[in-house]
Amino acid sequence: MDTLRKLVESFLADCLHDLDMPERLREAMNYSLLAGGKRLRPVLCLLCARAAAPEAKKEEVTRQALPFAAGLEMIHTYSLVHDDLPAMDDDDLRRGRPSCHKAFDEATAILAGDALLTDAFAFMTRAGLKNGLAPELVLQAIAVVAEAAGGRGMVGGQVLDMVCTGLGKTAVKGDPAMIKRLREMQALKTGALFRAACVSGGILGGGDAETLTALKLYAEGLGAAFQIVDDILDETQDSATLGKPAGSDAEEGKLTWPALTSLDYSRKLAEAEADKAITALAGLSSPEAETLRALAQKLLTRVC
Amino acid sequence: MDTLRKLVESFLADCLHDLDMPERLREAMNYSLLAGGKRLRPVLCLLCARAAAPEAKKEEVTRQALPFAAGLEMIHTYSLVHDDLPAMDDDDLRRGRPSCHKAFDEATAILAGDALLTDAFAFMTRAGLKNGLAPELVLQAIAVVAEAAGGRGMVGGQVLDMVCTGLGKTAVKGDPAMIKRLREMQALKTGALFRAACVSGGILGGGDAETLTALKLYAEGLGAAFQIVDDILDETQDSATLGKPAGSDAEEGKLTWPALTSLDYSRKLAEAEADKAITALAGLSSPEAETLRALAQKLLTRVC
Repeated sequence: MDTLRKLVESFLADCLHDLDMPERLREAMNYSLLAGGKRLRPVLCLLCARAAAPEAKKEEVTRQALPFAAGLEMIHTYSLVHDDLPAMDDDDLRRGRPSCHKAFDEATAILAGDALLTDAFAFMTRAGLKNGLAPELVLQAIAVVAEAAGGRGMVGGQVLDMVCTGLGKTAVKGDPAMIKRLREMQALKTGALFRAACVSGGILGGGDAETLTALKLYAEGLGAAFQIVDDILDETQDSATLGKPAGSDAEEGKLTWPALTSLDYSRKLAEAEADKAITALAGLSSPEAETLRALAQKLLTRVC
Repeated sequence: MDTLRKLVESFLADCLHDLDMPERLREAMNYSLLAGGKRLRPVLCLLCARAAAPEAKKEEVTRQALPFAAGLEMIHTYSLVHDDLPAMDDDDLRRGRPSCHKAFDEATAILAGDALLTDAFAFMTRAGLKNGLAPELVLQAIAVVAEAAGGRGMVGGQVLDMVCTGLGKTAVKGDPAMIKRLREMQALKTGALFRAACVSGGILGGGDAETLTALKLYAEGLGAAFQIVDDILDETQDSATLGKPAGSDAEEGKLTWPALTSLDYSRKLAEAEADKAITALAGLSSPEAETLRALAQKLLTRVC
């Protein structure tokens, strides 16, 4: 997994270098794209591509799918840049340093986000046009990502998040309607891109319908667990680790699992979702499937 | 051409209807997408697809390429929504009615733009996955659009536009360096998506290399003429027709052709660019090539 992360990191470090674009735009895009992070979505994509591919093809598929996987990180990055804007979450900090609109300016941050999103699709097409993957598979994988990132997915989730913000202050613990809203919002805002990363990887690796279903269920459990863990950490960790004030979600009245249930219940729920993820892969046996299972397990150690 | 425009209009009117997304997001997307306009980019795409296709395939290709063409209009629309934002051009009006962030709010406008851009790619993939066009051609066409709309194209042009704003106030008429900047900025900001519309259409229609080159040169001339005509109209038309105050570009100190040269010279330049477009199609004979030539000619009648 570290090997794949390094592969992604080194691709991202160079990927905008040779493109002919205004220097200020490149700087803003790179500022946000190269700000660190776990590169979870591209790594998931590559792991799933390898899990789905026959043994002899794993290395080739990894190399071929790399620009596609990088595109997923560009989409994730654009969403953070736009989420931080004054009109949205108005966050001055991201990963402990000034957010893009603070380091540059608001217009540049809007445009850097737009360019990251658009150029992500240019990188994704490259996997089929220059890297030798079957065009039909690449087209299917792009469709999965576009649907998961747009109005029916991540952006839709962001709209629901805005609508729900404030509700956390008055919500009654255990209110089933609020829990349903929180679940829906997180499934779209975070879950959809996790699912797209895993399913698109499986498609690019040539996975059959059964494998794709397993990867989809895995991603749904992992995405849900990831978001619950994130909610717990926001409530419990100190601000130095988070790069933002602890409990800031609660202060803003965001709907979170600890706000709607309890820390203890949230931990149990995260465990249950991680278990779902692990169980979904029961039919897959490969070093990559093992790594995917370990990833779900490791997520829990941060909060349990 | 009117038939194609109506086809596009009717596709756009329904295209978000069945998608499962938050109602407020759909409303904001539709508000901007269905605000009228000439639908020039999707119509160009369909005309070029038909011009490139064999006679017997024209109707089929039109039907197949329709969601792809609609994607181009979604990309154009998102760019207008984001350009109007307070941090960008800060325009309260668009086509004579409140711009998206005025009709809704700033966060919703940012997200509606993001969703229009992302979902455009979902619609474009559909041309290959559900409508029977060859996946390899659709992938090539998507690559052309993504490159033209991103940092190397439209978004890059918007950054240059920001950087150049204000220069128009102090620029000396005829300054070659300023004219070069203006030309570059307009080629990216407006020209790139015109070119992508024509070339992607040609690709989807199965055009050979020679046809694609002709369509590309046509689009470059048409795009340049279009932008010069727009500059002239901003200077000369009354505000009721424009939906914004006449001369507002000059007031903001934007670089425009009339500002850097003269109205008379700008008209001559528009003619020369339209001629280039018309000449580029000399090798193509079909009703659609005729329509494309007439389009370039008609553009001039608005200012000459």
